Amino acid sequence: MRMSSLFLRTLREDPVDAELASHKLLVRAGYIRRAAPGIYTWLPLGLRVLGKIEAIVREEMIAAGAQEVHFPALLPREPYEASGRWTDYGPNLFRLRDRRDNDYLLAPTHEEMFTLLVKDLYSSYKDLPLVLFQIQTKYRDEARPRAGLLRGREFIMKDAYSFDVDDAGLERAYQSQRDAYERIFTRLGLEYVIVAATSGAMGGSRSEEFLFPTPAGEDTFVRSPGGYTANIEAAQAAVPEAVDAGDIPPAEVRHTPDSTTIDTLVQRANELHPHPERAWTAADTLKNVVLALTHPDGTEELIVVGLPGDRDVDLNRLEGALEPVQVAAATDEQVASRPELVPGYIGPAVVGPNTSAGDGPERTALRYLLDPRVVPGTSWITGADAEGKHVFNLVAGRDFTADGTIEAAEVRPGDPAPDGSGPLELARGIEIGHVFALGRKYAEALDLKVLDENGKAVTVTMGSYGIGVSRALAALAEKYHDDDGLTWPLQVAPAHVHIVATGKDPKVLAAAEQIAAELDSEGVEVLLDDRPRVSAGVKFADAELLGVPYLLVVGRGLADGVVEFRDRASGERRDITASLAATEVRQFLADAGV
Amino acid sequence: MRMSSLFLRTLREDPVDAELASHKLLVRAGYIRRAAPGIYTWLPLGLRVLGKIEAIVREEMIAAGAQEVHFPALLPREPYEASGRWTDYGPNLFRLRDRRDNDYLLAPTHEEMFTLLVKDLYSSYKDLPLVLFQIQTKYRDEARPRAGLLRGREFIMKDAYSFDVDDAGLERAYQSQRDAYERIFTRLGLEYVIVAATSGAMGGSRSEEFLFPTPAGEDTFVRSPGGYTANIEAAQAAVPEAVDAGDIPPAEVRHTPDSTTIDTLVQRANELHPHPERAWTAADTLKNVVLALTHPDGTEELIVVGLPGDRDVDLNRLEGALEPVQVAAATDEQVASRPELVPGYIGPAVVGPNTSAGDGPERTALRYLLDPRVVPGTSWITGADAEGKHVFNLVAGRDFTADGTIEAAEVRPGDPAPDGSGPLELARGIEIGHVFALGRKYAEALDLKVLDENGKAVTVTMGSYGIGVSRALAALAEKYHDDDGLTWPLQVAPAHVHIVATGKDPKVLAAAEQIAAELDSEGVEVLLDDRPRVSAGVKFADAELLGVPYLLVVGRGLADGVVEFRDRASGERRDITASLAATEVRQFLADAGV
Repeated sequence: MRMSSLFLRTLREDPVDAELASHKLLVRAGYIRRAAPGIYTWLPLGLRVLGKIEAIVREEMIAAGAQEVHFPALLPREPYEASGRWTDYGPNLFRLRDRRDNDYLLAPTHEEMFTLLVKDLYSSYKDLPLVLFQIQTKYRDEARPRAGLLRGREFIMKDAYSFDVDDAGLERAYQSQRDAYERIFTRLGLEYVIVAATSGAMGGSRSEEFLFPTPAGEDTFVRSPGGYTANIEAAQAAVPEAVDAGDIPPAEVRHTPDSTTIDTLVQRANELHPHPERAWTAADTLKNVVLALTHPDGTEELIVVGLPGDRDVDLNRLEGALEPVQVAAATDEQVASRPELVPGYIGPAVVGPNTSAGDGPERTALRYLLDPRVVPGTSWITGADAEGKHVFNLVAGRDFTADGTIEAAEVRPGDPAPDGSGPLELARGIEIGHVFALGRKYAEALDLKVLDENGKAVTVTMGSYGIGVSRALAALAEKYHDDDGLTWPLQVAPAHVHIVATGKDPKVLAAAEQIAAELDSEGVEVLLDDRPRVSAGVKFADAELLGVPYLLVVGRGLADGVVEFRDRASGERRDITASLAATEVRQFLADAGV
Repeated sequence: MRMSSLFLRTLREDPVDAELASHKLLVRAGYIRRAAPGIYTWLPLGLRVLGKIEAIVREEMIAAGAQEVHFPALLPREPYEASGRWTDYGPNLFRLRDRRDNDYLLAPTHEEMFTLLVKDLYSSYKDLPLVLFQIQTKYRDEARPRAGLLRGREFIMKDAYSFDVDDAGLERAYQSQRDAYERIFTRLGLEYVIVAATSGAMGGSRSEEFLFPTPAGEDTFVRSPGGYTANIEAAQAAVPEAVDAGDIPPAEVRHTPDSTTIDTLVQRANELHPHPERAWTAADTLKNVVLALTHPDGTEELIVVGLPGDRDVDLNRLEGALEPVQVAAATDEQVASRPELVPGYIGPAVVGPNTSAGDGPERTALRYLLDPRVVPGTSWITGADAEGKHVFNLVAGRDFTADGTIEAAEVRPGDPAPDGSGPLELARGIEIGHVFALGRKYAEALDLKVLDENGKAVTVTMGSYGIGVSRALAALAEKYHDDDGLTWPLQVAPAHVHIVATGKDPKVLAAAEQIAAELDSEGVEVLLDDRPRVSAGVKFADAELLGVPYLLVVGRGLADGVVEFRDRASGERRDITASLAATEVRQFLADAGV
């Protein structure tokens, strides 16, 4: 590759919409170019890096026994209707119609199609286990495409699917893919944390995410000193034991004027109804929050979530727990539409299973879900469903119940891990992989059965395993850069060596060409900056921006028989004998594994 | 690859919708599987063949100086609106809306986006010439998807685009791509005929198609002994010189009762108004045919085409000439909607520039287009626009004119080539490549200019160059097969050698495994049929169906120290010493270029 003809323009200005280093640098260094919101074109250098990442992913998939296939991106509606995902994906799915008015979609992932293909071709337990994969273009109509390749609407994914006759087989396949992911991210040079995750619209019994930890990440996760890790959406509260409520006096409604917030409630309680032994705190109160759900089919529902008053609802966690339902705080109008809800004084008595017979015949009680920490026997101050009144000593289990529990409360640093492994810390990361033990959801929906050893039809159990290939490239750029530009590791770099010929002496260019030709003939990938009329300063700035791991500077030193070899990332430099440059660089790279 | 675990099921039955051998065999041999009409999944063996074709295309593109990029398939409407293709592609374009109700399309080709990208990054004549290419998934909502991969709705294409400052540059780029195409198809093992073609919705001044000649092809082309070749849609009539009409008597309207067809007209003319020297023939008559056009924006138009009475209108040729307009014969109702048209007696007087002042003020004359053979001075019998009447001695140029000429008449074997190179023959072929000298259509629409040597902004001139990669695979299957299955040439085969282990003797399988391992370690691609409990007959039938070029049969002969080496295509067989098998096969393949 010669810079004089390479289709490339480096840019000095960051793209206006870019916040993250990876986004800025990949655009400025001419790796990618925006075509539409969340939709990017791969320029020559970007395509080379992408190809190297794909090759590593492919090798490890094949080493793990997976076989490569390739599905269409444009797919008919019916299989996704059968699995429920046509609806469950809501507005995230790109839908279209063909000239005959048949419904199609652009696939976000291919569980349904793989299920149908295996059903189509295989019929016996002897055909299993089977793992198939593809590296393919995926679509997702993101509400907020952002951060360049990190959250795109057209992106490249490796998706693999496992098929087994029994749970033990699925467990082996899941572990094998999980192991392959560890090898892949290690080879790519990306650290990862494996965290428990929610399964969302994908369904299934268990899933884990591979996160590359970085403050730039969109995902938040928790980890404890003892090894508990979870995406914050999947993090579970440490649930105390149930309490014996025998000593607690009966519930009592008390006046608490002007106490529509937890702060004012705590103040009123301490002023008017002080605790005999200590001050009341927010943790003594039970906050009941009205939330508006939008189900995938468009129907809306109000629910009430009860949680300790010292915690807020985390809408992302709640949405994660309810996926594919969308969640928002209820508006004043929505709350006003239910006369039993007295804003600021909502209590369990008017929601869920506690609803009194006073309600009109047409009214169905709102669903009431509790934070898991509100265990039976705990006593609370909470709304009495009347202006200026709260009820004290209201005991969970004794005085009220709920329709279920839900992980809707914020997680705070220092919260105890649910497994007793210590206090949680919060960190951020980029999701680069996700493994799902799907179980039989898709096989049941699409009737994928095989005959077992006894000739009996059994439903196949499946896993699905994704790596965001284009996102991994962005994560690499997020990790491997400095103030001057990108600093690719050798195994994914667009070239191994960037040769910069400086000055106007034709001997310099000739020597650079000679070294480039020698390296090229030995399989070393060289980017040669042979641009005439471009200053050394510009050439160096471009080289640092592009981020090829090793630079060979052919310039003034040539008169003394030396050229300079630089490590882009560390900045280390040393002179080497010009006549031996190709040999030395070749040897150096061989030692580095090329 | 081991047949015992390869994701493959060969089928004994042809798919119900398949007519062509390529379609039947690619499905039966487990290379592809239908996902929706015109939309296919690549199974492991198909993906391998596809990868090899792509590699050859990529190598030759790079050798021709083209640089690889990769565009999205999902694109915004605006650039295609600017070029006119959003409308011109009519129902062939897959259109959709995103969650914000913005219009998108699935790209059929990427002229607009390449134009914008170059505009985005380049600005000087020094940046040119430039050739970019991609191998990418394309979409086209075909009215009649058929023939497997030959006419699909999602397919794989190599598209390249050239950018030059002047016509001479475009000509060099066009020729360079054309040469690269010749090398590609030669390396693939596909014969080709290069024919003149229409440019259709793509636009541009000149285009040629590469056709693989086969009776199974959808395209018809003509060729003459002297070397004229053209797609039948682009074939031009041999146009005679204009004639001196000095001797021809004035035009005269005569009674020709019951003569609404050319046959009855010729009969009436000979009965009632005989030619003084010879019999009238259909070639003496001028047939005026009413046609209904549908423009891309949906507006409808009736036109009249005049052509010698011994020829029919070829709707495909007419559509090719008018692309992107769609064409149909006018219905009786449509003809009746224009009272000046007397069915069976339509003449030039009421259409085009001949229209008399008798028309109402609101009426615009229908466009009238003539076959190029109706040159000035030729004399015709044609309709007199009244029931039972025709006009004789109506001379083109003297008595009537037209709005233009059009190539709408059928081409017949034996017609003279327009360049005097002899009589045409008709043949069929599959379009595997298409090169377009686009000129400045897209650069003008999207304002792609660069500064020339004098600092003046000049509009860039472009070419676009496509190869149907998945279609080339189907063309190869169409060429390389026999009654028993596929017969891939080595350079695109899914494996080099298919080793068949027969019988139940564990020594046989061990020997086959040993040979396979040796070959594999030397880079030979081996498909090993190691399936237990599968008869030799089934294994051979599968091997012939799959079409790996060389078979190595390890079976009974092993006791005598021999294995059998077979050429799949020729059927030739010879015994080779088992202990030397790997070495001999390796040497044989090395001689064959692997």
